[in-house]
Amino acid sequence: MRLSELSRVSGVPTATIKYYLRENLLHDGHLTSATQARYDESHVARLRLIRALLGPAGLSVAKAMRVLDAVDQAEAPSNELLGAAHGALMEPADPDRDLGRADDLLRHWGWSIDPKDRDSRAAFLDALEAIDAAGFDVPAGALDGYAAAMLQVANMELDHLPTQSPAAAVRYVVLGTVLNEPLILALRRLAEQHVSTQRFAGVQDLTET
Amino acid sequence: MRLSELSRVSGVPTATIKYYLRENLLHDGHLTSATQARYDESHVARLRLIRALLGPAGLSVAKAMRVLDAVDQAEAPSNELLGAAHGALMEPADPDRDLGRADDLLRHWGWSIDPKDRDSRAAFLDALEAIDAAGFDVPAGALDGYAAAMLQVANMELDHLPTQSPAAAVRYVVLGTVLNEPLILALRRLAEQHVSTQRFAGVQDLTET
Repeated sequence: MRLSELSRVSGVPTATIKYYLRENLLHDGHLTSATQARYDESHVARLRLIRALLGPAGLSVAKAMRVLDAVDQAEAPSNELLGAAHGALMEPADPDRDLGRADDLLRHWGWSIDPKDRDSRAAFLDALEAIDAAGFDVPAGALDGYAAAMLQVANMELDHLPTQSPAAAVRYVVLGTVLNEPLILALRRLAEQHVSTQRFAGVQDLTET
Repeated sequence: MRLSELSRVSGVPTATIKYYLRENLLHDGHLTSATQARYDESHVARLRLIRALLGPAGLSVAKAMRVLDAVDQAEAPSNELLGAAHGALMEPADPDRDLGRADDLLRHWGWSIDPKDRDSRAAFLDALEAIDAAGFDVPAGALDGYAAAMLQVANMELDHLPTQSPAAAVRYVVLGTVLNEPLILALRRLAEQHVSTQRFAGVQDLTET
């Protein structure tokens, strides 16, 4: 299909598609003349993915490009790939920052984290410090509880790793990190409401309406 | 203390403090003359909280105001309070939207959700549809797994509800919803790295460096 049809099928304006082509977010079409190119279903699928990363997942173009690079370049799921996906999403950590408080907790839980990956640990420390800055207190038991629940989530996620192809596994690992975050937060709020209804207000559910 | 000292102690510029006072995010000081007011530690604490909501938690001024209203007005933790906190954070749902897909899943899990609370269910549906739009697939077993983990999180959170005062419990419920989200997502990424290291790359941990 031509650019105009790709735009119509995908719902993405032609000027935006040209921008993604220039930025190498979208792969080039097959040139049919000096000024004409043909596009196919692979371009439609890629546009859907780009729009999801920039829209619901809320990434910047630069971050989306790094995530897509990680998807494109990896040949099989690996610890390095996950690190690349996470690195693409996170702000680079200050090299002089003391990460001791984060490391103490990770060691307490027995978690194996690459010592070279300062960004993930800095993001954890940022979250802890933001809570402190608000004058809010996460009970130590609750912090352990969040860690245990996230360990369960991570194990469950890897249990569902697609096995039909390395490419499918890579997509699952990289995109699942980004795209499932809003899902997890939405489910947490619903679960809080469910548990709170049971404890504070007696049982009531959707089937009663 | 005077406004200038409140600014110095809190690190918030005086013009910004005046803006929070005008918007009723911050309570008035004690008037000592027609043009002078005195502020105290309660203003310092409130400023820390406002800055955390607007900064790390990433809320707009309008949303922060709704969250702070929920904290200020509630007298005890209740299901309504949690609903008010969640409502303050979420976009209003389209009244004509079909939430059937979300409701089917919630019913499948046996979760008790207030039928009048369309916003929480619409946020869940938004997350599911964004994943679909990206051409990404969450295996049904993984969706059940996220739900089970978030149920565990919600139960654990309510187990740690502070009991020393209703006000402390209200703060915990409302602020914990907002402020702990970055913490949960940071822990998920670290847990993924830990589990992936164990499965793909052998065991390595921070104590070996």
